[in-house]
Amino acid sequence: MTYTLVLLRHGESEWNAKNLFTGWVDVPLSEKGIEEARRGGRLLTDAGVLPDVLHTSLLRRAITTANLALDAADRHWIPVKRSWRLNERHYGALQGKDKKQIRDEFGEEQFMTWRRSYDVPPPSIEHGSEYSQDADPRYAGEPIPDTECLKDVLARALPYWESEVVPDLKEGKVVLVAAHGNSLRAIIKHLDGIDDETIAGLNVPTGIPLLYELDEELRPLNPGGRYLDPEAAKEAIAAVANQGR
Amino acid sequence: MTYTLVLLRHGESEWNAKNLFTGWVDVPLSEKGIEEARRGGRLLTDAGVLPDVLHTSLLRRAITTANLALDAADRHWIPVKRSWRLNERHYGALQGKDKKQIRDEFGEEQFMTWRRSYDVPPPSIEHGSEYSQDADPRYAGEPIPDTECLKDVLARALPYWESEVVPDLKEGKVVLVAAHGNSLRAIIKHLDGIDDETIAGLNVPTGIPLLYELDEELRPLNPGGRYLDPEAAKEAIAAVANQGR
Repeated sequence: MTYTLVLLRHGESEWNAKNLFTGWVDVPLSEKGIEEARRGGRLLTDAGVLPDVLHTSLLRRAITTANLALDAADRHWIPVKRSWRLNERHYGALQGKDKKQIRDEFGEEQFMTWRRSYDVPPPSIEHGSEYSQDADPRYAGEPIPDTECLKDVLARALPYWESEVVPDLKEGKVVLVAAHGNSLRAIIKHLDGIDDETIAGLNVPTGIPLLYELDEELRPLNPGGRYLDPEAAKEAIAAVANQGR
Repeated sequence: MTYTLVLLRHGESEWNAKNLFTGWVDVPLSEKGIEEARRGGRLLTDAGVLPDVLHTSLLRRAITTANLALDAADRHWIPVKRSWRLNERHYGALQGKDKKQIRDEFGEEQFMTWRRSYDVPPPSIEHGSEYSQDADPRYAGEPIPDTECLKDVLARALPYWESEVVPDLKEGKVVLVAAHGNSLRAIIKHLDGIDDETIAGLNVPTGIPLLYELDEELRPLNPGGRYLDPEAAKEAIAAVANQGR
């Protein structure tokens, strides 16, 4: 018995296009992102990978990406579960800020630490500020963060992985997780057993389904997974690495 | 304690626009239908009606309508439940047929009987024919029909209403049901206690949220509900009644 998992990072958002730190700010997809999402769905169809259940974050860019991709793959009718635990990393006080400006202001080293260090979060967001989620009803009663490093994302995503995703996999369902650069990096780190340093260099491109075949212990039979469009993934990964340059 | 229910018929589909019997054929929204769905979401926002949970059918036109309306209302992140029991009436052998052609071929009386009689279904769809759902994976293992009258729709929708919708209402959630002309007529007949003859004359317009306030026994405090755009609803209801003319 092998299990099938598909990871899908949302298509380009309006703030990806503008090079802003987004985090939990609920921005829509750009026109390019909408097209990426539909193409992601066609890649699923072409590969004969038909999701039986969808897990998403509570953020519009992941939800819309999943809706469009599943519609394109004729799987719009499958069950959906959503959780803030699959949200993008909370970028704290950096949310809404220009990546290049932050890099110029704080220097390359601090910039890269905030972007890529495993365990150093940015400063906390100010409560009640423009890009804070204090008053957002979707998080009411949840123990939500005011900033996060990747380690924090792993700590809040794993309980959801174990309690909601793993049972679906073990029932033999093809599971689609439509989420974000950092929540997907957290899952990949866990699945592939990547160490705290190496994960810094791993980027996930937008809109290209990443397929994992897992054994009965949920260990990847194909470590690192397989992008359904490997050429496009290679190019896109290089582009992600250059953000803020 | 009062409960809040919102019923939303999908926006115009490509086959509504072509005047074809659709039933369970999974056609997309037309451009007009996409705009209707977004406008439905804005009507929810303007009325301050914010759904906490969504119930839909397994058909694309209801799913897309809900996705677009909820996105417009900033409620895209609410939980979703779907069931074939909220699907449109199965139109049997009429699925895919031109309404005007059927009327010309079989005459006004037979045409209106198939469209509006409470307990006379059209002839069954032929298994394996172009517009049959025999091989559709979304219905695998379900006791699906091969034709239906409104009475049949009521019989399969009510168990879902009781087991899935009512518990959400009783938890005090604002419930959105995004579905179809006939599955919504079935729910309305049940809620308002409409008799088998009178229901024939009741039409539900596309894309305009219909709000019910219910008492503790789930009886409407406002019988017939309240359309969030009453003027547009009035015009649209007249148009629905004239289909096939």
